Formats: sequence, structure tokens, C-alpha cells
Amino acid sequence: MAPRPTPSDRFTFGLWTVGWQGRDPFGDATRAPVDPVESVHRLAGLGAAGVTFHDDDLIPFGSSTSERDAHVSRFKDALAETGMTVPMMTTNLFTHPVFKDGGFTSNDRSVRRYALRKVARNIDLAAELGARTYVFWGGREGAEYDGAKDVRAALDRYREGIDTLAAYVLEQGYDLRFAIEPKPNEPRGDILLPTVGHALAFIAELEHRDMVGLNPEVGHEQMAGLNFTSGVAQALWSGKLFHIDLNGQRSIKFDQDLVFGHGDLLNAFFLVDLLEHGADGSPTYDGPRHFDYKPSRTEDMAGVWASAEANMATYLLLKERAEAYRADPEVQAALEASGVASLRQPTLTEGESFADLLADRGAWEDFDVERAAEHGFGFVRLNQLALEHLLGAR
Amino acid sequence: MAPRPTPSDRFTFGLWTVGWQGRDPFGDATRAPVDPVESVHRLAGLGAAGVTFHDDDLIPFGSSTSERDAHVSRFKDALAETGMTVPMMTTNLFTHPVFKDGGFTSNDRSVRRYALRKVARNIDLAAELGARTYVFWGGREGAEYDGAKDVRAALDRYREGIDTLAAYVLEQGYDLRFAIEPKPNEPRGDILLPTVGHALAFIAELEHRDMVGLNPEVGHEQMAGLNFTSGVAQALWSGKLFHIDLNGQRSIKFDQDLVFGHGDLLNAFFLVDLLEHGADGSPTYDGPRHFDYKPSRTEDMAGVWASAEANMATYLLLKERAEAYRADPEVQAALEASGVASLRQPTLTEGESFADLLADRGAWEDFDVERAAEHGFGFVRLNQLALEHLLGAR
Amino acid sequence: MAPRPTPSDRFTFGLWTVGWQGRDPFGDATRAPVDPVESVHRLAGLGAAGVTFHDDDLIPFGSSTSERDAHVSRFKDALAETGMTVPMMTTNLFTHPVFKDGGFTSNDRSVRRYALRKVARNIDLAAELGARTYVFWGGREGAEYDGAKDVRAALDRYREGIDTLAAYVLEQGYDLRFAIEPKPNEPRGDILLPTVGHALAFIAELEHRDMVGLNPEVGHEQMAGLNFTSGVAQALWSGKLFHIDLNGQRSIKFDQDLVFGHGDLLNAFFLVDLLEHGADGSPTYDGPRHFDYKPSRTEDMAGVWASAEANMATYLLLKERAEAYRADPEVQAALEASGVASLRQPTLTEGESFADLLADRGAWEDFDVERAAEHGFGFVRLNQLALEHLLGAR
Amino acid sequence: MAPRPTPSDRFTFGLWTVGWQGRDPFGDATRAPVDPVESVHRLAGLGAAGVTFHDDDLIPFGSSTSERDAHVSRFKDALAETGMTVPMMTTNLFTHPVFKDGGFTSNDRSVRRYALRKVARNIDLAAELGARTYVFWGGREGAEYDGAKDVRAALDRYREGIDTLAAYVLEQGYDLRFAIEPKPNEPRGDILLPTVGHALAFIAELEHRDMVGLNPEVGHEQMAGLNFTSGVAQALWSGKLFHIDLNGQRSIKFDQDLVFGHGDLLNAFFLVDLLEHGADGSPTYDGPRHFDYKPSRTEDMAGVWASAEANMATYLLLKERAEAYRADPEVQAALEASGVASLRQPTLTEGESFADLLADRGAWEDFDVERAAEHGFGFVRLNQLALEHLLGAR
Repeated sequence: MAPRPTPSDRFTFGLWTVGWQGRDPFGDATRAPVDPVESVHRLAGLGAAGVTFHDDDLIPFGSSTSERDAHVSRFKDALAETGMTVPMMTTNLFTHPVFKDGGFTSNDRSVRRYALRKVARNIDLAAELGARTYVFWGGREGAEYDGAKDVRAALDRYREGIDTLAAYVLEQGYDLRFAIEPKPNEPRGDILLPTVGHALAFIAELEHRDMVGLNPEVGHEQMAGLNFTSGVAQALWSGKLFHIDLNGQRSIKFDQDLVFGHGDLLNAFFLVDLLEHGADGSPTYDGPRHFDYKPSRTEDMAGVWASAEANMATYLLLKERAEAYRADPEVQAALEASGVASLRQPTLTEGESFADLLADRGAWEDFDVERAAEHGFGFVRLNQLALEHLLGAR
Repeated sequence: MAPRPTPSDRFTFGLWTVGWQGRDPFGDATRAPVDPVESVHRLAGLGAAGVTFHDDDLIPFGSSTSERDAHVSRFKDALAETGMTVPMMTTNLFTHPVFKDGGFTSNDRSVRRYALRKVARNIDLAAELGARTYVFWGGREGAEYDGAKDVRAALDRYREGIDTLAAYVLEQGYDLRFAIEPKPNEPRGDILLPTVGHALAFIAELEHRDMVGLNPEVGHEQMAGLNFTSGVAQALWSGKLFHIDLNGQRSIKFDQDLVFGHGDLLNAFFLVDLLEHGADGSPTYDGPRHFDYKPSRTEDMAGVWASAEANMATYLLLKERAEAYRADPEVQAALEASGVASLRQPTLTEGESFADLLADRGAWEDFDVERAAEHGFGFVRLNQLALEHLLGAR
Repeated sequence: MAPRPTPSDRFTFGLWTVGWQGRDPFGDATRAPVDPVESVHRLAGLGAAGVTFHDDDLIPFGSSTSERDAHVSRFKDALAETGMTVPMMTTNLFTHPVFKDGGFTSNDRSVRRYALRKVARNIDLAAELGARTYVFWGGREGAEYDGAKDVRAALDRYREGIDTLAAYVLEQGYDLRFAIEPKPNEPRGDILLPTVGHALAFIAELEHRDMVGLNPEVGHEQMAGLNFTSGVAQALWSGKLFHIDLNGQRSIKFDQDLVFGHGDLLNAFFLVDLLEHGADGSPTYDGPRHFDYKPSRTEDMAGVWASAEANMATYLLLKERAEAYRADPEVQAALEASGVASLRQPTLTEGESFADLLADRGAWEDFDVERAAEHGFGFVRLNQLALEHLLGAR
Repeated sequence: MAPRPTPSDRFTFGLWTVGWQGRDPFGDATRAPVDPVESVHRLAGLGAAGVTFHDDDLIPFGSSTSERDAHVSRFKDALAETGMTVPMMTTNLFTHPVFKDGGFTSNDRSVRRYALRKVARNIDLAAELGARTYVFWGGREGAEYDGAKDVRAALDRYREGIDTLAAYVLEQGYDLRFAIEPKPNEPRGDILLPTVGHALAFIAELEHRDMVGLNPEVGHEQMAGLNFTSGVAQALWSGKLFHIDLNGQRSIKFDQDLVFGHGDLLNAFFLVDLLEHGADGSPTYDGPRHFDYKPSRTEDMAGVWASAEANMATYLLLKERAEAYRADPEVQAALEASGVASLRQPTLTEGESFADLLADRGAWEDFDVERAAEHGFGFVRLNQLALEHLLGAR
């Protein structure tokens, strides 16, 4: 049986996940709206540590100030009653038709200004609620047609938007970092900053790059056929894994937002291993394990809560399996045989200059390349050991 | 009819393109080897400006020093006779079995050292031949299995390799820049630096980042379902489009390396428009238009040379079409109506602070969001104008 | 300039296409509803020949009988006033939440029975309005999870549904054929009958297979990375191209439903060529050229009508280009050189038995396989000729 | 630990799998050739039941008759010594350059005739060796360019080829069935009969359709983003699962041919469940469990044999997990709650006519559609149960 989650596991859920009503491009809602206060209580009861939300998830678009205050007040009460936290918040810059060509990068400048205001307002609330991460998913920042968007200008505006808001956070003294969430497409034909890589590259060009990192999502990378675990590793390598969105995706298609593990299970196993143990045994990430998924629209509310549990159960099971994998002497021997750890050794010996390498006959003139080529790396066997651990068969 | 190419068009070809013998995963060679000297003469005759090559394309792996010299000498004569140049060179770190787990990031350290030597040796030749760009395509740097490669360690070694070689170039005083060529997969299950974005993000972490840029390839981005023209625009935005590989790909599948334009033709049109006119009329790239394609293995040598011509003819036709598109007053009006140029206008007015924006009631309190949402962007019509120009129908 | 469409071009549009309000998985409607009567008039004015619709497009779900009659009556008046026809109709078995697990193959039998009734009722209307084709798009017939659906049982129920309704049509004496529309995924994780091939294979198992064919859609096949034109050719080969849905898709991702030609333009060119000229000059399809696309949600109503025009303009331009391609003696010579027509010649000579072939030494013992292998097919040049015709450059 | 395989498990391997030398589009062989006789002995030692091969795997292309006899004789001895069988054979119509445009559908008629002879010759050997299935993988039957192949003519020739050879088998009285293996692309840009569906549809048009079925391969369907297990279910539904190729693939990309289970593990679990238990507990397939994979080129021969073991171990583990899943009362209850079995119940009651259904007010007039829509199917929980069984956690 899967272990029971507790708040120390740091599991968090977006209000929009369990609250998703099941409206899709071809169908109407299959479930009634869920009161965010109920979600807080239910998720707390299941062992989660916190919730996250877009402004409009809690405070319906167009609410008056007094309505807004009432929504926030009730919500704070629920947090207080349950001990749940709000470690991350974000802005909805995609649902309202005014954002149909984007928020920060809409070809309509008045929309860009409106978007900055909408974000700033919600950042104030994030600070008030104690969130430490503010996510930017620019799902509408993009185009269907190559002539419709000057991508370089769009990146200028994107940078202007992020840097302006970062400066605002700094001025306000908020203890908040930004995390950009890449996605290749859907709802736009092509979205700006389509992958972990593009977003990292964008961040490198920001004025306030130190306070901006990533919020990668399993399915978003897999929608481009990319290896999510490798992408997370590169984000870690750049010191930019600020937050993470866990879910499931089956191959390259529309954004499925399945339960974590209900997609590429082997990749999910190695992801948990990376987060919990790195490649060398030490954890690489200490932030929330955040589920950004959609309970299938075939489910009723009982199914919704079961799906929330499933995310946590899968994570904990994979963590157990990864621990056993790391602890197994046979695995350790196989890793050694495959040279996995030896890659951490620099190519040049400590103190060796490149001139020294050029003078090392053993590296070139006397290197027996044919013999070296015979070396077998044993990667298939290593992978089979992982699979058997994953299956609980070792 | 397509215009005739001339050296001023700066078209270049890899020796390995017209020289590809048609060996694929399921079939033997369909064509005899081509003498690089013949390729130089034939391509010069077709109007190309230069050729590029991997060390082993000119000098068979394992050649003795005297054999090497003889190959280089004959090749230089051919260049002198034709006026062809060698603007780019690169290293083969993928064909020999010794590189089966990569060059710079092989789990076998002796291979990593050997790889650095192989590159350095060829960089010397590149400098001798006057190449200005040295390309790194790390096709074997990757893995099939998530447990087989410590990606963070691999990125460390990749960085060590590039930075070490960059320092070598600087020390030698070579006038040479590096260009990294991303690819998502094939031959490895997942390749490190899988997209334009990942490679840009990697470069941002290099010590010698100023001399390292990108060599993006049409098909490589499209193998991840990414928009190549958008990727090139981001590379330009980062100041990193150092070289470009033009070819064709049809959807997400194995690397097809078709003739330029024989894949996503609309994207190719907008790519040429971007390179030649930017989004605002000024060229964005003045380097070689380099074709990295494979003449289909169904072709004999006559078909090979016809395919070389086809690449150049397509580029020149698309350039003509893009010029007419830019010059058409109806297109200009449509671009204006779509707000394409207005995205270049900063979101904050010059001199406006964010506090000013927060105080601007027109941006939020008095902003008529419903009315603003009614605005139609006219993107479909704009795209149809492009399509009709592409079809020569305007 | 593109030719002006006329009703003789047989262009038809779904009411749901120009009527799409722009609601997508991440955003609300960007356009007001369009009165079907207005669509009939506007499309007639643009040169279309007819419209098609799902029951609920014309008669809102849950309408009373008198409301229903009023809707139908107004609609018939619009048809009469404009001369527009309704050559195809279909049923909405996907929007209402009751269909969340499918119509004919829902795990809930009461839904299956309800679905049959909903279809039968609309078939009566189809017959009344003179439609000749009734389309079945089973977008909800599928699953997200492999254990959730007994696929063999589902195919049994699918067959029961189609055969039962086919028998009903025959009994009623309606002059109506069925056309199944395949799609690989979205809205379900995997949809039954995912491709042209799977649907053809299913039809072969039907009792009333003679009256059931296909309605393939450009984007649906391309969402599986399949060549749409090849799929249509196989449907024609099986005598099953009963109807066709034209639109555009860019690579493997969510269902984009772009304007025809705004995706893979070369494939669209060859599709039009196939429909209009076959591979041998004779048309292969005489049914409606039906556009099943979505005007991008960035567009206002002016943009919607412009997008409708764009579909027809692109088709007519491609038809012109294909005619010029077929008529060009250089193309004809290239086709000859490539052996395209010679594939129509049987492998065995007329009257030749297999025993004769086994006795033909020229086919094996004396066949110079190495020499035969040298033959170049000239496919790249042929494709370049097509591309240049497509670009209007010949 | 995984159970030990025995011949009663019916595991078979292609000689070309363990014999793959690791030559890929970008690299030379990393392993020496393996003597087929050694493969027979090694695989027998690992618990396999048989081997399969292409003619050229055993008898190098161009062998003289006496050489051929010697190869066959040695091979027969190995079979006799080990008790291994040859349940399937197939023809290599793809490696030699003469097949560059296909075998049965080459635009060069002399090649088509040669291909028929090559197959016929090897069918004789298949009969001699007691093979019961003869596989046709038409990897070269296709095109890169839409104008290069008249697909309808190609399907005519494909049918001619298969029907001619089927007639030959019948005339010779061989106890042999044909199995077509679909693949969407690679090595050709688009391959004819790209999916399980297209191949089933093709078979339905054959004269000798009764003796022709399918040999679906895991990775080939997944290269089109299709659900392999669903495809196998449709093949079973059509009575056409004659053989099966097991391997692994990670998303849509080049053909990876990984070890079975080293790709989409959840789909592999449900595949084994389908083969071993159907959806209702009874096995659906009693033929060989045939592995068509490639040991990664990073492996030496020890790694090759380990990879062969891994295929069998994974299958047996998944079989164990599937048995436990089926036996678990909680799973049975969940299946019941999800209505999985109830889909086997016809939509019309036995004896009920469609007129009866039309008269059933409970199915339409009195059907409470809103209430029915509230029903939750519990699919997510069911999938989570499967996942936990797969992980050995129940």
C-alpha cells in the first residue's frame, strides 16, 4: 500500500485542479464549481500541505473590492483552520477574451498595461498570504501565424513585463521569487518560451535574473517530446528550479494534465529520484511538490478527491522505490560499471593545462581507439534494474 | 523560374551533404563516395560560395600525417581554382564506435580526453583554412535511459569541453567563433541541449560565452514540434545566431534532412523573411546560408546535384516572394491593422515609472475590458496574404 | 489574385465553423453567437454552395418540439432564399456531459440508448433537408486509461450502433450514406478508430458496409503524423471517400482547425491535385469540398468571414497550380523519368502465371541487381518542380 | 526477482536483434557480427523457445547455392541441438540499394519482379523449417514526396504481390499464414500501410484475406502517437492478430527498438494483460511472444545477452502483476463501478428491434439526461489501482 501523505511531504495543489469543472474544447462542464474553502479543507484532510491559485480562482473576474475582501477573508479563515499554506500564487492572463493575443506581449498595448496591473494587484495579495513563489505561465503569449508576431519585439515586451514586476517586488520588499512556466503550444499555436531551455535562456537576459527561475511542468516538456527529467536537471544545473508542476502526459498530443505517474512512469521514477537523491544521493530540491493536473471529466467529486490522493500516493511510492534502488548494492555496482559517477570527474586532471593535454601522448597518439571502442557501458542492464525496482520486484 | 544563385548569395554546403552515400538504419549505401574535390568544383559551378566539413569528411579517420597533408593540399587547390571558401568547420565525434556514449560527455573519461584532442587538431586546420565559425553538434552527447547519465555532471563536462577549447582558440589568436547545434534526439534517445533554448541557456553559463553562439537547424527544432522561425528569432534576440543550417522536415519523426522548403513551406517563407528583412525591414543575419541536408537515397549523382540546386532555388524564390510581401501596401495595411509593429512600443511610456502605471486609472479602473476584448486582430487575413504572396498569386 | 468561388465549386461549411465562439480549454468565448440564418446568407454571398451542421448547432440542446420546428422553419427559408443546400449533417454526441464517456460506446448503457435516439431523430431531419451524407465523428468514443475501456466490446457496440442506424436508414428509404470521421485523440486521450486506416478496417466488419464510408479530416491525420494525402488515396482505393473535411494543422499537437492550406501547404497542394486530377488526370472525388475549421479566436466577425473566404481562395489557387503542374511538359517528363505511371503496370505480365515468373531467369538468376540498384529515380527534382509550380514560379 | 523464462513461455527473438551490430545513421558498427548458430545456443540457454529471421540474416545476400545450403545446414543442426524452433520468417526487401524505392511497390517494375522471386525463395525455406507465420514488413514501400508515388497504384501492386504469394503458398500446400507489419515512417518519409488500421483495411481488400493477418509492433504504433494496446485490441476484434513484435519506444521520434517495457510501461502492462487475460479473463493470443528490439549500441556482447534476458524478465513480471490485478477483489469492484464489463452488453436488448427502442420513452422522452450526466465513472481510481499493482504495491 502507498504511504499516507503528511504536510512534511510538502504536497500542494492548485485550486484550479480539483476545482476543474471539466469544460474542454468539445464539451461543457461535467461538474459543479467547487468552493475554494471546501478544497482547502478536503486537501488538508488528505494530507496536503498547501494550495496555490490564480487570482480569478479565488476571486471571480470582475468582483468588486468588497466581494474580493470577502473571498479573501473566508479563504484565510480556511487556511487558519487547517494549517494549510499558500506557497505559490499566479495570475490568470488567459481566460478573459481581452487576453486573446496575450498579456505582456499582446499586439494591443492597452492590454499589456492592463495585464501588468492585474499581476501587480495579485502580487500584493501573494505577499499578504505569505507566498514565496509567483508563477508566470504565459499561455496566451504566442501566435498561430508566423507573420502575426514579431518575436523579438515580443521578447522585449516579455522582458519589460517581468523586469518591471520584479523591480516592483524588490521595491515593496516582498519575499517573493518569480518562476516562469514554459509550454510549447496550446492554447496558442506556438507559445513563446516553449521549453525549459527557452525560458532559461530568456531569464539569462533579464535585469533581475537572480530572482527569476523556472516552474517546469511534466506534461509541457513531454508535449514537445522532450525528456522532463533531463530538463529539470538542466534547470537545477542553472540554479533555477524554483518550483515544479507534477502531472502526467501520454506522448505528444494535447495537454492532458493526468495524475502524476499516469503518463511516462519510468521518467516519473527518475524524476522523483533526481529530486530526492540527485544522482549522487543528496536531495536537489526542497520546495513544494506541486500537482498541476486535471481530474478527468468522466469523474464525479468522489473521483476528484480520489485523483488528488492518487497523485500523492504515486509520488510516495516512487520515492520508496527510488530509495530501494539507490540502496541496492547490485545497482551501485551497475552504476559503477556504467561509469555514471565517473562523469563527475573533470576531463582535465586538476592542475592540468590544455597544453598538458595536448602533450599527453596517451590521450591521442598512443590512445588505442579501437580497443577503447570495445568497452560496453551496461546501460540496458542498469535500466532493467531500475525497472525491476520500480515494479517492486527487487 | 528561380533566379540563378551567385557567390554573393553566400550559399554553402557541407561536404557530407552531397557526399552522403545513402546509408540509413535499414539500408546500405546507394551511391559511391564523392571526392571532396569534385564536390568543390560542382558546387562552385552551381553558384555556391563555399563548403564546410567535418574533419573525417576530408581526411578519413585514421589517416597518417602524410595522407592527411595530401588530402588537405588537394582540397586547398580546389578552393583556389574555384574561389570557394570554407566559412565553417566542425568535428566528427559521432561515427566511430569509440564515441558511442558521446565525446565531451562520455562516461569514459579517456574518450573525453581523446575527443578534446580530436577537436583541437581540427580547429588548427579550421584556422588555417580561414573558417570563421566552428560548429559543435553533440549528437552522441546524451542517453537512452534516465539512469545512465548524470545530466548535471554531463553539463559540467560539456561546459569544460567548450570553455577549454574556447580558451585554446583565444590563446592561439584564431579568428574563430563557436556555434552549438541543438538536436532533440537521434542518434541518442535524448540528446543534451535538445533545442535552441537549451543551448542558449547552456551558453549563458559558459566562461567564454561571448564567443559561443548557435547553429540552429530547421529540422532539428521541428523534430520537437517547435517553430523554427520563432527559435531563430529568440537566438537573434540573444545575439547568438552565428550560423544556420537550412533543410526540410515533415512533422515529428526521424531526422529527414530534406531539401530546404520541402518540409514546412510557410515556416520556410517566414524564416527567409526574418533573415532577409527582420520584422522591420532590415536584415538580421549576414552569415552563410548553409544547407545541411541529405539528397534522398533514391537519387543517383545527377539527382544529387539537382537537389543541391533545388536548395538554392527555393531560398531565392522565397526571398523574392518575401520581398514582394513586404512591399505590398495591402500587406503593410494588414500588418498595421494587426498591430504587429506596435508591439515594438514599450508597454510603459518613456519616462513612465511603474508607480505612474499603478496610478493610471485608464490602465485598470477605467479600462473597458469588455470593449477592449472585442478588438479583432486580423491575423488570419494577414496569413492569407502571406500565403498568396508565397504562391505568387499577388 | 485568387479566383472567385461559385456554387459549382461545391464549397460547404459547417455552421459550427463560422459560428465558433472561440471558447477553448483555457479561455472564454471571444465572439457572440452567430445566427445560423445569417451564416447561410453570408456564406452564400461569398460563393459557397451549402452548409452542414450538428443537430445542436441549429436547434439548441433541450429545445421543445415547437422551438425545434421554428428553428428548422427559419433555416429552410434561408436555404430557399439563397439556394444553399445541406449536403451533409451530423449529430452532436460530445458536448453535453452525459456523453463524457462516449455515445455509442459509453460504459453506461442508458447513454448508449439515448445516443441512438438522438442520432435517429436527426437522421430524419437530414432526410427531410435532402442531405446525402450523414457523418459520425465519435470524438468521445475512447478512453484516457487502458483499463477503463474494453476496446473489443467498444468496437462491438460501435458496430451495433452504426449497423442499427444503417438498417433504420434503409428501412425508411432515405437516400443517405454514412461517413465515419477518424481522429486519434482530443478530447479523449485515445479515440477509437483513430485514423483513416482504423476506420476503414472497422467498416469492413460492418453488416451494412456498402453504405458506410469515410469523412477524413486533414488535421486529424496530421495529428498522428500521418500523410493526409496518402490516407485519402487509400480511402479512394477502398472506394470509401464519401466526404472530406478540409482544414490546416501545424505538426503534431492539439487540434488546430486552421484555414485550409495554413498548415502543411505542400501536402495540401498534392491533396487538391489528387481530388481534382488523381495521379492520372481524372478527378477522383465529386462530393462537397467541406471546410471544417475554426476561425482563430483572435478574430472578430469580419475576420471570421475573411477566414471563410481564405479557405475557398486557397483551394482554388491550389487547383490552378495543380492544373499548371499537370500540364507542364517538363513535369510530365520528370514523372516519366521517375516511373510514377509505370507503377500502374502489373508486376506480372498479362497472362503470366507465378510459375512463369519463377521460370523467368531475367527476373532472378540473370537479373543484374547491382546495376539495377544504380538507377536514380529523380524524386527530388520532381518535388522541386511541384514546389516551383506551387510558388507560381513556372 | 523476475521468474525464469522457459520454452513454454513461447519467447522468440529475431536473429537480427541480438545480432544487430549497432550501425545507425550517424555511426559505424560497435559490435562484431554474431554467428546465428551462437545466437540460437545463447537464446536457448536463456529460456527462449525459438528464433526468427530474414533470409539475409542467415544467408548473406548474394551467397551461392552451396554457401546457402551450408548456412542452412549448420543452422538446422543448432535448432536440433537446442530444441529451438523457427515459428516465423520474413524477407529482407530493404537493405540492398536495389530496394531503395521499395520491393512490391518500386516504381521500377524489374525490382518488383525480383522482390517477388526473393520472397518466394525464402517462403520455400520457411516451409522447410516449419515456420507457421511469414511476415511482410514493407519498410521501403513508401515515399518522401507526395508526387513521387501514385498511392492507389502502389496499393494495387502491394495487393498483387501479397495475393500472388498467398496463392503460391496455397498451391504449394504450405502451412503458413502471412502477417503484415505496419510502420508509419523510417526509413521512408511515409510508409504505405502506416498503422494497424491501414494494414487491416488493406487486408480486407485482398483476395486471400483469410490467410493474411497482422504482426503489430509496439514502437511502430507509438511512433504515430497511437495506443498500441488499443491497436492490438482492434486487430484481435478483426481476428487478425497473427503474430506480435514486442519492444519499447519513448514518445514520437525515430524507431528506438528498446527492450520491451523500457518505453511506455503502463501501456506494456495493459498489453500483457490483454494478451494473457483479455478484458474478461481469457487469453486472446496463443502465438509467440516475439521480441523485435535492438540492444543499444553502447553495449558489448555481455550487454546484448543481458538485454535479451531483460525482455523476457519484463514480460514475465508484467504477467505476474496483471494476474494479481485481475485477482484483486478491489480491482474487480472498481471495474464493476466503472462499468467496464457492462459495455459487453448490447445496447439493444435481445429481441428488441430499433422500432422498439424508438418507442421506449425511457430512452429519450423520459430519460433524465442531466441526472445521467452526473454519474462518475471512477476511471482515475481504477487506473491508480492498476499503477499500484504494476508497482507491486498491492
